[in-house]
Amino acid sequence: MDIEQLRADTPGAAELIHFNNAGAALMPQPVLDAITGHLQREACLGGYEAAAEQAQALENVYGAIGRLINARADEIAVIENATRAWDMAFYSLPLRPGDVVLTSTTEYAGNYIPYLQLQRQRGIELRVLPNDEHGQVCLSALKTLLDDERVALVSLPVIATNGGPVQPIEQIGALTRAAGKLFLLDACQGVGQMPIDVKKIGCHMLAATSRKYLRGPRGMGFLYVEHALCQTLEPTFLDLHAASLLTPETFAIRDDARRFENWECNVAAKLGLGAAVEYALAQGIEPMWQRIQQLASHLRTQLATVPGVTVQDLGALKSGIVTFTHHQSDATQLQQWLAQQARRINVSTSRAGSTLLDMQQRGLPEVSRASVHAYNTHAEIDALVHALRRLPGR
Amino acid sequence: MDIEQLRADTPGAAELIHFNNAGAALMPQPVLDAITGHLQREACLGGYEAAAEQAQALENVYGAIGRLINARADEIAVIENATRAWDMAFYSLPLRPGDVVLTSTTEYAGNYIPYLQLQRQRGIELRVLPNDEHGQVCLSALKTLLDDERVALVSLPVIATNGGPVQPIEQIGALTRAAGKLFLLDACQGVGQMPIDVKKIGCHMLAATSRKYLRGPRGMGFLYVEHALCQTLEPTFLDLHAASLLTPETFAIRDDARRFENWECNVAAKLGLGAAVEYALAQGIEPMWQRIQQLASHLRTQLATVPGVTVQDLGALKSGIVTFTHHQSDATQLQQWLAQQARRINVSTSRAGSTLLDMQQRGLPEVSRASVHAYNTHAEIDALVHALRRLPGR
Repeated sequence: MDIEQLRADTPGAAELIHFNNAGAALMPQPVLDAITGHLQREACLGGYEAAAEQAQALENVYGAIGRLINARADEIAVIENATRAWDMAFYSLPLRPGDVVLTSTTEYAGNYIPYLQLQRQRGIELRVLPNDEHGQVCLSALKTLLDDERVALVSLPVIATNGGPVQPIEQIGALTRAAGKLFLLDACQGVGQMPIDVKKIGCHMLAATSRKYLRGPRGMGFLYVEHALCQTLEPTFLDLHAASLLTPETFAIRDDARRFENWECNVAAKLGLGAAVEYALAQGIEPMWQRIQQLASHLRTQLATVPGVTVQDLGALKSGIVTFTHHQSDATQLQQWLAQQARRINVSTSRAGSTLLDMQQRGLPEVSRASVHAYNTHAEIDALVHALRRLPGR
Repeated sequence: MDIEQLRADTPGAAELIHFNNAGAALMPQPVLDAITGHLQREACLGGYEAAAEQAQALENVYGAIGRLINARADEIAVIENATRAWDMAFYSLPLRPGDVVLTSTTEYAGNYIPYLQLQRQRGIELRVLPNDEHGQVCLSALKTLLDDERVALVSLPVIATNGGPVQPIEQIGALTRAAGKLFLLDACQGVGQMPIDVKKIGCHMLAATSRKYLRGPRGMGFLYVEHALCQTLEPTFLDLHAASLLTPETFAIRDDARRFENWECNVAAKLGLGAAVEYALAQGIEPMWQRIQQLASHLRTQLATVPGVTVQDLGALKSGIVTFTHHQSDATQLQQWLAQQARRINVSTSRAGSTLLDMQQRGLPEVSRASVHAYNTHAEIDALVHALRRLPGR
């Protein structure tokens, strides 16, 4: 990888040290240009007229996402954000009273709340998969639980927002498929960071966001729905893009995954997502994933040498999300201290409420999160570690 | 109104003649600057870090929308677009089998399809209100229908996408309130064009978009939900912004209208919406509405002088949306012809499928739509009419 070029493409890299890639990564210039260029065209030409000019580029976004995750273009819906993408999949499933949903302790609370909502509204049952000794989903326990014919869905994140393991998604997918159950994967922290191949994973549905490791704009995401499943799911919400009105009494839902979209969208952000996917593909996902893992491993090793710091990551396979605690500082204070350095350092804070089961199990009220991307450097990691050594006590 | 200033603020006004304001109006420079300026900050500082800088500005968006429609800031949810804003209101209503929804012939098919969907899914009953001699909702018929205790909701657009009348929303609201029924107003074509006062109208919920007469960005909208109603409605979708996870078994939904939002949003577009609302308020909605009506009236008068053109607008009170047919040209051909003029002229085409009941009732397969905004001029109208006189036949 040409790291100098990667950094030259990234305006923010010259400004500060960004370790909040799991929140929102720094957009590269081609992404920023795609968005702002289209906004300028909208202002000068009109919103619909500018979109018509970009009809082919907008169509290409589906193909690019398809190449990124090894899916067909007609299995992709471009949706306002990953939350609504996940919602459109999950809430559209025909879950009935007594149906069991299996999830992981690492589930994001934003997904977990919908499980509880449908538990109350539709009488589904939620079961949390136990972990193995690495803190990952225990595959033998999953296999046993899948024997219960009431299980309708396995739904979990590839990587938790608070670090944690990279789940063994291909094994989970294989077991879930073999049992004839549906698998919904939240790939928000995975897409753009690591190879995600829906065919290898065998997931039926996958939701992802633009703003994290993909380095696209905020307020944009996508949903993958396997072709064979798509037409069996009636989207929770319909409109004149997802369906057409045939007579005053009848409507027809479109065949492809765009049945989960709606007509209106932020066209500039959609083009930005397309540019981000193309940029990631041009870099190569596999080399990026190798570099992210190397940088994160270096960061964990360095953090372990800082007095008072405890690295909190679990997993046989770890990602670019590095979490830690400091026995003399709370995470907010630590985050503020780092933002005040001569060259500003961005980290973030994950609180228990975001991944409640995992954090309660580990007795952690919060963790500091430094999430590295391929454009980060060893020198930046050293600067972070150096600053943490000088962190004032509580 | 200072029309010269209005046009100087509008980069697109120097480029072309834009009569597609009911599709997406031309953004003024302050709106464009708010969006692109924030995108630049996101690229240089990080997405979350840039949002934190703008925390107060983001909070102010709610207050500005509140001032625009005479609502409290905590009665506003900023949502990805008007479709999803409307969806979050409509689908969250506790409609039961046999409940009756009343709508108008002018309803947008994107809303009408959801009625049919819940007719099938939940067994609600849909009834379409008859029109009076002006093509508007017949108030006496509404009054009679509201006597049916099974009526749960009145739901209609203030102005149809294909022109049509400005519905007598204050009278509809008064009758609906008096009958103790809920009133959901689709104000997509109303907000930014005409005074919309939710207290005077008496609507319980109102959805609107940013991109039309408000002149904000695409991919942004908002929902008003009356304070007293808000806490009785459980949003169809929940996440970690709309609710919080208290224990692994319990969650709490937030009290204000932001329960209909989700955590992730296009922050740049949200700031753009705020800038658009502030810009509209600074111009004054009432003078804009007067000018839009004058321009539209002038356009209708001029169109009536063009051989082959028939103005198709109904209503005792008409809006800035002017629709017409040409007996020698279909709407697509007409739209293309106008786009090819020396100074490009943008109009749009409304097809029957968008407002099926109304178009079928009037036997119209399509209409051409020229929607004027306050920044348009008489000279631009003359240019449109002049071009139409030279339109080649089929």
